[in-house]
Amino acid sequence: MDTSTIRSMIEQLRSKRIAMLGKDFLLTWEKSPEEIEATFLVADILRAMREQNISPRAFDSGIAVSNFRDNSTRTRFSFASACDLLGLYVQDLDEGKSQIAHGETVRETANMISFLTEAIGIRDDMYLGEGDRYQREVGKALDDGVAAGVLPSRPTIVNLQSDIDHPTQSMADFLHLAHYFGGLDKLKGKKIAMSWAYSPSYGKPLSVPQGVIGLASRFGMDIVLAHPKGYDLIPEVVEMTKRQAAASGGSFTYTDSMDEAFKVADIVYPKSWAPYDVMLRRVPLLHAGDKDGLKALEKEALANNAKFKDWECTEEKMKLTKGGKALYMHCLPADISGVSCEAGEVAASVFDRYRDDTYREASYKPYIIAAMILLGKFDRPAELLDRLVARTKPRVF
Amino acid sequence: MDTSTIRSMIEQLRSKRIAMLGKDFLLTWEKSPEEIEATFLVADILRAMREQNISPRAFDSGIAVSNFRDNSTRTRFSFASACDLLGLYVQDLDEGKSQIAHGETVRETANMISFLTEAIGIRDDMYLGEGDRYQREVGKALDDGVAAGVLPSRPTIVNLQSDIDHPTQSMADFLHLAHYFGGLDKLKGKKIAMSWAYSPSYGKPLSVPQGVIGLASRFGMDIVLAHPKGYDLIPEVVEMTKRQAAASGGSFTYTDSMDEAFKVADIVYPKSWAPYDVMLRRVPLLHAGDKDGLKALEKEALANNAKFKDWECTEEKMKLTKGGKALYMHCLPADISGVSCEAGEVAASVFDRYRDDTYREASYKPYIIAAMILLGKFDRPAELLDRLVARTKPRVF
Amino acid sequence: MDTSTIRSMIEQLRSKRIAMLGKDFLLTWEKSPEEIEATFLVADILRAMREQNISPRAFDSGIAVSNFRDNSTRTRFSFASACDLLGLYVQDLDEGKSQIAHGETVRETANMISFLTEAIGIRDDMYLGEGDRYQREVGKALDDGVAAGVLPSRPTIVNLQSDIDHPTQSMADFLHLAHYFGGLDKLKGKKIAMSWAYSPSYGKPLSVPQGVIGLASRFGMDIVLAHPKGYDLIPEVVEMTKRQAAASGGSFTYTDSMDEAFKVADIVYPKSWAPYDVMLRRVPLLHAGDKDGLKALEKEALANNAKFKDWECTEEKMKLTKGGKALYMHCLPADISGVSCEAGEVAASVFDRYRDDTYREASYKPYIIAAMILLGKFDRPAELLDRLVARTKPRVF
Repeated sequence: MDTSTIRSMIEQLRSKRIAMLGKDFLLTWEKSPEEIEATFLVADILRAMREQNISPRAFDSGIAVSNFRDNSTRTRFSFASACDLLGLYVQDLDEGKSQIAHGETVRETANMISFLTEAIGIRDDMYLGEGDRYQREVGKALDDGVAAGVLPSRPTIVNLQSDIDHPTQSMADFLHLAHYFGGLDKLKGKKIAMSWAYSPSYGKPLSVPQGVIGLASRFGMDIVLAHPKGYDLIPEVVEMTKRQAAASGGSFTYTDSMDEAFKVADIVYPKSWAPYDVMLRRVPLLHAGDKDGLKALEKEALANNAKFKDWECTEEKMKLTKGGKALYMHCLPADISGVSCEAGEVAASVFDRYRDDTYREASYKPYIIAAMILLGKFDRPAELLDRLVARTKPRVF
Repeated sequence: MDTSTIRSMIEQLRSKRIAMLGKDFLLTWEKSPEEIEATFLVADILRAMREQNISPRAFDSGIAVSNFRDNSTRTRFSFASACDLLGLYVQDLDEGKSQIAHGETVRETANMISFLTEAIGIRDDMYLGEGDRYQREVGKALDDGVAAGVLPSRPTIVNLQSDIDHPTQSMADFLHLAHYFGGLDKLKGKKIAMSWAYSPSYGKPLSVPQGVIGLASRFGMDIVLAHPKGYDLIPEVVEMTKRQAAASGGSFTYTDSMDEAFKVADIVYPKSWAPYDVMLRRVPLLHAGDKDGLKALEKEALANNAKFKDWECTEEKMKLTKGGKALYMHCLPADISGVSCEAGEVAASVFDRYRDDTYREASYKPYIIAAMILLGKFDRPAELLDRLVARTKPRVF
Repeated sequence: MDTSTIRSMIEQLRSKRIAMLGKDFLLTWEKSPEEIEATFLVADILRAMREQNISPRAFDSGIAVSNFRDNSTRTRFSFASACDLLGLYVQDLDEGKSQIAHGETVRETANMISFLTEAIGIRDDMYLGEGDRYQREVGKALDDGVAAGVLPSRPTIVNLQSDIDHPTQSMADFLHLAHYFGGLDKLKGKKIAMSWAYSPSYGKPLSVPQGVIGLASRFGMDIVLAHPKGYDLIPEVVEMTKRQAAASGGSFTYTDSMDEAFKVADIVYPKSWAPYDVMLRRVPLLHAGDKDGLKALEKEALANNAKFKDWECTEEKMKLTKGGKALYMHCLPADISGVSCEAGEVAASVFDRYRDDTYREASYKPYIIAAMILLGKFDRPAELLDRLVARTKPRVF
């Protein structure tokens, strides 16, 4: 890759009709096809610039806030890497250390942390029905702050995982697919199996499978969602996916057989999640801090999981896929049988074979996040990138 | 605002006779009137530069240490924003994580964290009689380190709240007032009511009211301090305020009636604090980790607070102020009746009307902190700012 | 010092035959004499550049990961200062906050945190037999990641203290010695006493004494290791030291008398550590979380320590040294009798006399760390430094 390739990607970007300035990136299905493509393009451009030692630093100073309401290693590092690449300093909003517990409203805090802030990354995935709502509440507070002249500009919110979607993950997943198959247009007609898989833990959010089907349905793919009966996703998200799949010339089907889903699949994404119903029942228990109730729910859920130990991505199941060679995907960390647990989502030999692929899949996330921020903050991203390339400032001197 | 306005502010700054290089910013009353004005000017210049996309980054690298011995959200973000704006990287001195608990002396730690450090922000407001002393002890250790040739330069200490003063808050408050009323000189003769207010919590530091009266008394204002009998501030600070008020052509009076204080006031600052006496008794209990003693003291203090529930900034009280339109101020977060607590410092309708004003008030804090650092580190601040403007490096490329 | 001095140090650096690119800095005895000298030279050059206000910022962006598996203040600040000086943003890998506890392998985490990472600093000194191994495991994972094309470049690992060596400490110690005595070559024939000293705590790692003798034995020094019988270091490290001492034209002897060690010593380094045997027995107890077992071991070890309270660096002992004026060294914090504990490693009057020297000793650490990173990341360090000097970009504008 040389500068001419970068220039040509910038030209493609210039041709996209997008309206992302001042907007947040919360759900992929709120973005137009051209906006999705623009995000992929900017991610690829930023990566290419870094690989060619052209600094993409667009800010000489500026704050990026990270607000993790659930644990994270990889997304934390991806966000920090993305912000640093653009020149932003990450300041963690640690609600334990802060005075938020002392009665501060979301509205007030959102403004207080934003006087010199360009981007805010939020993870809030534990409370079904609340994570996305919290992100929108922060967004509304920022809108009000800008309207009142309190804030000099509108920080862009990047959803680092909500109860509904995990767009930095799904966008990284599909940028990986675009590179793996030789282009986004190559995804049309490909079969992707988004399948539940057994795990000896419970309470994993629904946002990854929802994010995957919500995005896969934009590219004319044949999506098969597989899970044991009762392990439903949020019904509205599934309905929305069906409509999108049809509109993009693809299809969406559900099966309660992992084997069925894997048959001639081009891509398989076996991943555990908690049933919608369990996640719903968990919310009031979490709010009440009801440890006994949570323990009872966990016991019940794990007992139910145990009925489906055969939902494991084994070598046998992989043989069912197209030519036995479907691409295995995972958001990591995976529950690997005999490695991270006794029995889990995937056989060790399968995971080993695709380990580097899953690492490569993850490697797109920092660039996706940087692209989301850049597109939320710059009115003419193609011109900005043009000027950044022309500046020829090396990242490493 | 354009560059000519910035240039004119720089000219005003150049005319000030100041001696702030190598000095800490611990108490506003240790600074001369011209030094106070210079700090306001630099804050306004930095803000204007940022608004016009001129990068005020004066450091290509350098460490700023934040040492929070009490919780903080807004001041933490203000400090980080200020340091990042100037080009400094904030490293938190977390005394929990560090070896300070293992017998390190303040003297040693102060040197160990300062080899490449330009600024140190310290919050230590819980222990009456100790917070300010700790900051001075750190300062003395840094002086010794410089004298011994151990440190290449003297980091500037910024008081992010001590037991005595909260200068980043009060300076932000008064820069807000200067903009609100059209200039610092417009404050002369204005009546400001610094009033205690009811809160269902206890143990709030005295540094905010002390900081407010300590600074208000520099500008010829008519200060009324109001609190129930027994809710005294540090006597020496009140005496100092009286002297300053007289010297600046203003006045200082005390009343035990909130209504009296509010009458024809131009500005009201209703805010809860713990009585001096309670704060004093609390110190040995905190040191001893005496939970029962603290609980008993809290119970006693809350019972006493409860006698003064009518010390609330209501619509009725606001009507007593000049034209019923005094400016309401608060350092945030406020205890808002019916919102953050059942009954508190301020009625919800009053707070709502002034919400944006309080946010604007807070928005000056990052620039005040940046100004304090800049003036502590640069011998010729006007020349530096001149050159930064002439450099025409954009903050956002 | 002026630019010509810097240029001359760069010329010396250019003449060194080194192969440090893409390598980690884990143990000083894995580095050739010229590599050790190159590291000292780069540290001195970076310090001189900063003192002359020439910015050594080599990266416009990039991540440095800090992974502290044990507490730290000074090393944490040294690492942050070093990284910031070079232009890297430090992101802490906090294994408490992260999902590492949820079954992630070291291999996976190492890759996940490294997509845009240039350096990784690791402290892992509590588990004898494991700290160094962990660092190598991370290194191997990074090698694999680069080989698989997952990582764009190999982050350099800097050992911030393992169970075996503490190279950032020992290298800072010896750069201090080189400046104190007027050159590395002046160390030949000097007598250094690395002596155990009494402390009322237990479980201090062996890495400092091992690091000191492991490095001292490169310069033809006469090393005396002194400790009570039973307070052994790792036998292999002692054997290696003997071989190195002989090869460099120096000597290595052991004595169980502190007095004997101090006699006509040029340098004394009295410092407590736990016996090898105790550290070994502690590992399974730590892994098992066996609090009772740990308490019993601590009791036994402290009772044993108490037999050797006379192993204190007193004025009387200092009189035994060469001219009574040996240089006292310590990695800090020291257990100072009557100051940080009742009876400890060093008498207060001795420590007071050498306090500034120990601070100066510590002041080299940020530059040593920056040198290690720079040499691990840049193929032609002399040319890089040449260009950085020629760029004449001020660190402070």
